[in-house]
Amino acid sequence: MFHHLVLVGFARPLSAADRGFMVGQCERLRRDIPGLLEMQFVDNASPRSPEFTHAFVTTFVDEASHDRYQEAPGHERLRRKVSTLKQHLAVLDYHA
Amino acid sequence: MFHHLVLVGFARPLSAADRGFMVGQCERLRRDIPGLLEMQFVDNASPRSPEFTHAFVTTFVDEASHDRYQEAPGHERLRRKVSTLKQHLAVLDYHA
Repeated sequence: MFHHLVLVGFARPLSAADRGFMVGQCERLRRDIPGLLEMQFVDNASPRSPEFTHAFVTTFVDEASHDRYQEAPGHERLRRKVSTLKQHLAVLDYHA
Repeated sequence: MFHHLVLVGFARPLSAADRGFMVGQCERLRRDIPGLLEMQFVDNASPRSPEFTHAFVTTFVDEASHDRYQEAPGHERLRRKVSTLKQHLAVLDYHA
């Protein structure tokens, strides 16, 4: 399996509408993208990295599924929304 | 379950001995700490965050198990080794 995590720090607290958009896009992408097994938008509960307030946690059957996801229109809509709101971003990809 | 991920960036490529220490401590801690279900030391395959070269990925049955792990001598030995080698560090904790 291929794990893809995006840690995000938002400049301001998320509005209910923006949070709803993130959660909804995760559900839609998980339904629509073949090989996307899990996709969650989570709050970072750690006080050790306040610059990262949230994360997208995704699991794919393989790296090829992840590469297709990166090209999907639904992912592009999510990416654009995140990029308008974010202050910090870090990516962790690993096989396991 | 409680997920605890530590993204780490090492200043220099890890020596074989240091990598062996990280992997060995993960195996030992997983064996010794009650409630620690998974612990892996992984390479970050993403080219998007070169500042984070590796990560420790851990899964606990609950947050209390994670809190006990933070106090364990084996974790303290790992923490000291990482702190002598690291340049960057970020923590993501979440319930799922």
